[in-house]
Amino acid sequence: MGLHKITFLPGGERVAVKDNATLMEAAEKAGLYLNSLCGGEGVCGRCRVQVTGGKAKADKHSIGFLSKEELSEGYVLACQTVVKTNMEVIISPESRMEAEQIVMGGVVVDYSQPEKIFVSKVSADPLSLFEPLAQKLYLELNEPSSEDNTADSDRIMRELRRRTDYQTYERSLRCLQGLASKLRDNSWKVTATIAKHGEHWRILQIEPGDTSDQNYGLAIDVGTATVVAQLVHLKSGNVLGVAGSHNLQARYGEDVISRMVFACEKEGGLNALHGAIVEVINNLIKTLADEKGIGVEKITAIVSAGNTTMSHLLLGLTPCSIRMDPYVPTAHSFPQIKAAEINININPEGILETVANVASYVGGDIVSGVLACGIADQPQTKALIDVGTNGEIVIGNNDWMVCCSASAGPAFEGGGISCGMRATRGAIQRIEINNGKVLYQTIGKTKPRGICGSGLIDCIYELVRNRFIDQEGKFNVSTNHERIIEKDGELEFIVAYSQEADAGEDLTIKESDMSNLIRSKAAVFAAIKSLSDYVGLSFSEIETFYVAGGFGSYLNVTKAIAIGLLPDIDPGRISFIGNSSLMGARMALLSCYAFERTIKIANGMTNIELSNYPPFMDEYVAALFLPHTNLKLFPSVDYWQRER
Amino acid sequence: MGLHKITFLPGGERVAVKDNATLMEAAEKAGLYLNSLCGGEGVCGRCRVQVTGGKAKADKHSIGFLSKEELSEGYVLACQTVVKTNMEVIISPESRMEAEQIVMGGVVVDYSQPEKIFVSKVSADPLSLFEPLAQKLYLELNEPSSEDNTADSDRIMRELRRRTDYQTYERSLRCLQGLASKLRDNSWKVTATIAKHGEHWRILQIEPGDTSDQNYGLAIDVGTATVVAQLVHLKSGNVLGVAGSHNLQARYGEDVISRMVFACEKEGGLNALHGAIVEVINNLIKTLADEKGIGVEKITAIVSAGNTTMSHLLLGLTPCSIRMDPYVPTAHSFPQIKAAEINININPEGILETVANVASYVGGDIVSGVLACGIADQPQTKALIDVGTNGEIVIGNNDWMVCCSASAGPAFEGGGISCGMRATRGAIQRIEINNGKVLYQTIGKTKPRGICGSGLIDCIYELVRNRFIDQEGKFNVSTNHERIIEKDGELEFIVAYSQEADAGEDLTIKESDMSNLIRSKAAVFAAIKSLSDYVGLSFSEIETFYVAGGFGSYLNVTKAIAIGLLPDIDPGRISFIGNSSLMGARMALLSCYAFERTIKIANGMTNIELSNYPPFMDEYVAALFLPHTNLKLFPSVDYWQRER
Repeated sequence: MGLHKITFLPGGERVAVKDNATLMEAAEKAGLYLNSLCGGEGVCGRCRVQVTGGKAKADKHSIGFLSKEELSEGYVLACQTVVKTNMEVIISPESRMEAEQIVMGGVVVDYSQPEKIFVSKVSADPLSLFEPLAQKLYLELNEPSSEDNTADSDRIMRELRRRTDYQTYERSLRCLQGLASKLRDNSWKVTATIAKHGEHWRILQIEPGDTSDQNYGLAIDVGTATVVAQLVHLKSGNVLGVAGSHNLQARYGEDVISRMVFACEKEGGLNALHGAIVEVINNLIKTLADEKGIGVEKITAIVSAGNTTMSHLLLGLTPCSIRMDPYVPTAHSFPQIKAAEINININPEGILETVANVASYVGGDIVSGVLACGIADQPQTKALIDVGTNGEIVIGNNDWMVCCSASAGPAFEGGGISCGMRATRGAIQRIEINNGKVLYQTIGKTKPRGICGSGLIDCIYELVRNRFIDQEGKFNVSTNHERIIEKDGELEFIVAYSQEADAGEDLTIKESDMSNLIRSKAAVFAAIKSLSDYVGLSFSEIETFYVAGGFGSYLNVTKAIAIGLLPDIDPGRISFIGNSSLMGARMALLSCYAFERTIKIANGMTNIELSNYPPFMDEYVAALFLPHTNLKLFPSVDYWQRER
Repeated sequence: MGLHKITFLPGGERVAVKDNATLMEAAEKAGLYLNSLCGGEGVCGRCRVQVTGGKAKADKHSIGFLSKEELSEGYVLACQTVVKTNMEVIISPESRMEAEQIVMGGVVVDYSQPEKIFVSKVSADPLSLFEPLAQKLYLELNEPSSEDNTADSDRIMRELRRRTDYQTYERSLRCLQGLASKLRDNSWKVTATIAKHGEHWRILQIEPGDTSDQNYGLAIDVGTATVVAQLVHLKSGNVLGVAGSHNLQARYGEDVISRMVFACEKEGGLNALHGAIVEVINNLIKTLADEKGIGVEKITAIVSAGNTTMSHLLLGLTPCSIRMDPYVPTAHSFPQIKAAEINININPEGILETVANVASYVGGDIVSGVLACGIADQPQTKALIDVGTNGEIVIGNNDWMVCCSASAGPAFEGGGISCGMRATRGAIQRIEINNGKVLYQTIGKTKPRGICGSGLIDCIYELVRNRFIDQEGKFNVSTNHERIIEKDGELEFIVAYSQEADAGEDLTIKESDMSNLIRSKAAVFAAIKSLSDYVGLSFSEIETFYVAGGFGSYLNVTKAIAIGLLPDIDPGRISFIGNSSLMGARMALLSCYAFERTIKIANGMTNIELSNYPPFMDEYVAALFLPHTNLKLFPSVDYWQRER
């Protein structure tokens, strides 16, 4: 009855919650966000915590996820455990989304340092013309006279037309209200904020005096797992800062599908998910604005890029029909809105543009990525490969583009892998195994907490090369290496011993992890192969392969080829570009031509539904081998330097 | 101390007001709106009421406006009288803006009967193409399939493009939210409301099923004195009803200038005036919607036309710079807004367009009038003369147009004339005097309460013709007619004896009234003459003169010529068109081509500032005679059938 006090360790956070609240809810109240793949359904086992004070009993659900030893030590699943007494609870690092990780999220997307205005290495004019979506122009107007007594707002538009190439200006009512005294009180010296709106420009506000230097924008990559925002000075194009955050929607489900289910089947689910992403973005805005000491009202434009579901949830649109055949979203392109319409805290007249998508599973993040790597702007045929829970592939040039999406699973983002983690602080991102000795490097150079995508790729490669696993991913027990052990009836390889790790136990790769990784890489490769076959091109006819994804700040391309994730071509033709979605969003923010191009890219791309393309399944099965069952596809790969 | 009860007669309305409230405030609280030219400053003497119970004393201000007899009978000025006791107060008909008049207001604007879709007698295509600003289209969409899995909103736009000539559609975020289930729950049968927005069309809302017949719009003439709204069925173009109301802004000042002063010099003045006109419009909307049994959410578009100050006040824009040299308004053209932005109660996504103005004293009402009479559409040169407190003149054709505005005073609207009144129920609108016998006709065929513009014109003419006044407007005492009497040292002519009238006293025209009327007609004629001279045209070169204004439903053109108000041309070339502002607003509502034309008309018209045009004052002085000092200008006018 009544309230119970819960203390969380190691941080010591304390909260009081009502009788029958879950430990998951208590943790949220304490500002601690627990991992959850399933959205609190008790079916993923990610939210395990250890109860060290008070009474708690693991329920039926939990028992399947916990070893006898763990049960005896008081481990429970937080989402399934109801609070009946005061309690003390230890949250292990694996279960926690740490604030520290959130802040450091930016490190891994390669934008930690302020950058000069975007340079798209491959884009031609006019995309790279600097013409931000929102601009501030300082105007010194002539005072009216009997000879020149045009209306105040016409006087402003006349000056804007003189100063810019644009003839038509729309005005909001709010910018007209109070205008007369604003002009007269400030000797006809004011600053107009104008923003691109469709084919026109719109006057958003008139400020007294010269504020043209105080104009900021945000490029935001709204990822399922991570949200990253860049603060950009719109007058210069300089990136002033970057901040990253876990997507708080993870409270309601870790992956896109479980969030769609939550949105569509839970009462108020859509609002909760919409509210969560708005909260994340507002937090990032506050972080960046505070850090740089600028008022949020000086932020006048946002470009957001995300997958189709994320864009829908951001705008409060239901994603329900996205997950059901024939996979139809509410919208492919989105209207420009005032950020305030969805309660995002920037200038009340500030605009938000959402990058258009191609289809339910090829979203604005991919369109933004295509913009960033310039595929749509040149006659040479190139490809973009975005490896995530869905692997999306684009092949094309300035004449045509095709794309597809394959469900690859979250393995390369650390999901479904026992020691997998996202590419954040403490993740092992590089591994070498020489003579049975394991060398690794972590993000942030801290103790290892898990292994991220690039580390997993390295790991597979090194395990095969060292003959610890065979080409199907099965362990060679015959090697008798001390790092290969059996636990709970399954073989595993110790990457880092518990004493080296921050996780309290050995970091290992299990045989089942290996299966997951091979299935993931097979799906991605099969998608690349199917799409290139579909358009009748061999890999050699595709000039460059751009690879995007949350692997880490680093990707060993040669090893990615060697495990059969990427096609076996000259590694020099493969370019790892990191967060291309964020890069494209910034380009669109800084160039209205680039923004317009995103719409053309989205409209011009043909989506191939792999589920309706029979050869895909054969390709997938053929790719369930390291590097591939058809070794002719990987002529350069030779794990053991054999004679051919 | 405390509250005092006030009873108003003859209606018996009762209210309780605080100590020291004014009787004017008490009347407002009772829903009774008193005449006030000065905005409650005690300087116009219009709000006289008789206190028959309780204590009240006429203050210094009031004494100058009330005769000894009136003072002894308890008359006071309501705006200057403070409540100290319970009171009983009689509001005389002259002082009251009656609800009855308000409802009947429509009668006088010639739109009492539902009409078919507008017919502009002179306009050529494409203005008369029926293409309402807001339209509802019933759509039966194909259900999505794997072969046709475009997004929901793209599916709608595709169908709209197929059904209309418009290729680009904007969408509001609100119309996308909830769209997916709306389509699926209604078997893909929905109705889209689209509205013209600049060069594009905008999807305002998607409704389940077929609601295409339930789409209504409003044309509103926002006059300084009277606001008139027509409810239009947007599918057929039929006018379903009309409602008129006094402009409640009169609480704060009867004429444009006093309202500008109120807006600019009183704290909160602008908000009060803005709120008052919004209240009027919402009342009219409610009246019309209730009368026709339709929900206000089915009203999707409004076109409002008013003078520059009225349009500014409607939109909450300060009119302060309009009244000061060089007479610069905030805006000539206005953005389309959601009616909800200014709290007008129609569909929350419904649009409001405000007709553009030419200059501070040539407003959207004139632009709307020019649209209605088709001046801008034909090669023949024509003129529009709008007689009101400001007389506005337009001369031109489809190639050029000039306009001007002259301060004529409110005489022809009944202002500043002792028995003058607006053209509402009880107003004498026609007068004939034969052999000393006065025949008249009132609006609504009721007892006379005063004389409106057309009656005053008749009256002047008949008085001259019967030699009761001379050509300077002075009474001929030598006639010794019983209707010419002297009162308070001034001569006056009895139009209706007290026993015939509803006003309790004789309705008379005084010598000072005659001076006011002559000054008014002189200003209007001088403006016509100056403007035609300015463009180098004689009256004979102007094919048609359209005359608009609140004279009544009737105007005797021959008599208007004979008193020198209108040029002496063939009366057949003069066309009285009544409320052309409302007519034009309806045209714009029903044809987006017509609406676009209003913008071109406003932009294309050259305004001549008469205050900067020296010949105007000479013309004015020359016109202070009946019909004119230069009789050559009025060759056909011969009051007494003299030999020439």
